[in-house]
Amino acid sequence: MVDGGHHSTRSVALGVITTPREADIADRLLALRTDVVELLEEYRPHVVAVERIFFQVNVRTAMGVGQASGIALVESRARGCTVVQYTPNQIKETVTGHGAADKAQVAKMVQLRLGLSRPPSPADAADAAAVALCHLATAPMTVGAR
Amino acid sequence: MVDGGHHSTRSVALGVITTPREADIADRLLALRTDVVELLEEYRPHVVAVERIFFQVNVRTAMGVGQASGIALVESRARGCTVVQYTPNQIKETVTGHGAADKAQVAKMVQLRLGLSRPPSPADAADAAAVALCHLATAPMTVGAR
Repeated sequence: MVDGGHHSTRSVALGVITTPREADIADRLLALRTDVVELLEEYRPHVVAVERIFFQVNVRTAMGVGQASGIALVESRARGCTVVQYTPNQIKETVTGHGAADKAQVAKMVQLRLGLSRPPSPADAADAAAVALCHLATAPMTVGAR
Repeated sequence: MVDGGHHSTRSVALGVITTPREADIADRLLALRTDVVELLEEYRPHVVAVERIFFQVNVRTAMGVGQASGIALVESRARGCTVVQYTPNQIKETVTGHGAADKAQVAKMVQLRLGLSRPPSPADAADAAAVALCHLATAPMTVGAR
């Protein structure tokens, strides 16, 4: 969660949701839903920005990403959030200035932009913050409208 | 919805959920969730069987299928349903006897097995019934346990 105020941008909460690998897919998705709903209720974001993946090494990964992102999208929309999606290239281009940036460069820019003492860890948390920063840079007018 | 009783298998409800193509993805997923929840509440199935797709022509389709199936899986699990997934080959193999069956053959077998006067239409409704029939044939013991 990133708060993009008029004069500053700050990190409100930053992390990753994990679910037990050994559980079956429906139980993992349900655990994810519980956590997503909890975050939405606690922080009440105006906008939820999600990475849109078009190219992926394999279809099985794309299915899994789709299942998880579908739940994030629908629970956010059900609570009145504006839901936006950006491609990895848009995110990297907007946050670092070049679309082919690597994970370390993204994490470094997230650290600088949010004034953190170190790059967010794990890398997926930095990626999530980058999606939020991409949205703030792309569509600042839609923030704070709720 | 298919009822697999001790002596007969019958169709309880058969159809497809459609959402407006022109709506954005979050709104379409929310419309899907509303319909899925309504069906789950109305028919209270013991088991929800979903097609598991591993190979797909493109990643964009796999993402969309993932987003929709994730919602079906999680809402079913949240209501205590047993959730199972079968691959297209398992479904065709179990229902028609050969894994390379075409859509018309699947629809014909669904018609015969459910004693319908004609093959279900649209073809996606027949495919959905085939997933249910595949589960009844594969794991009859798990039915009726609720």
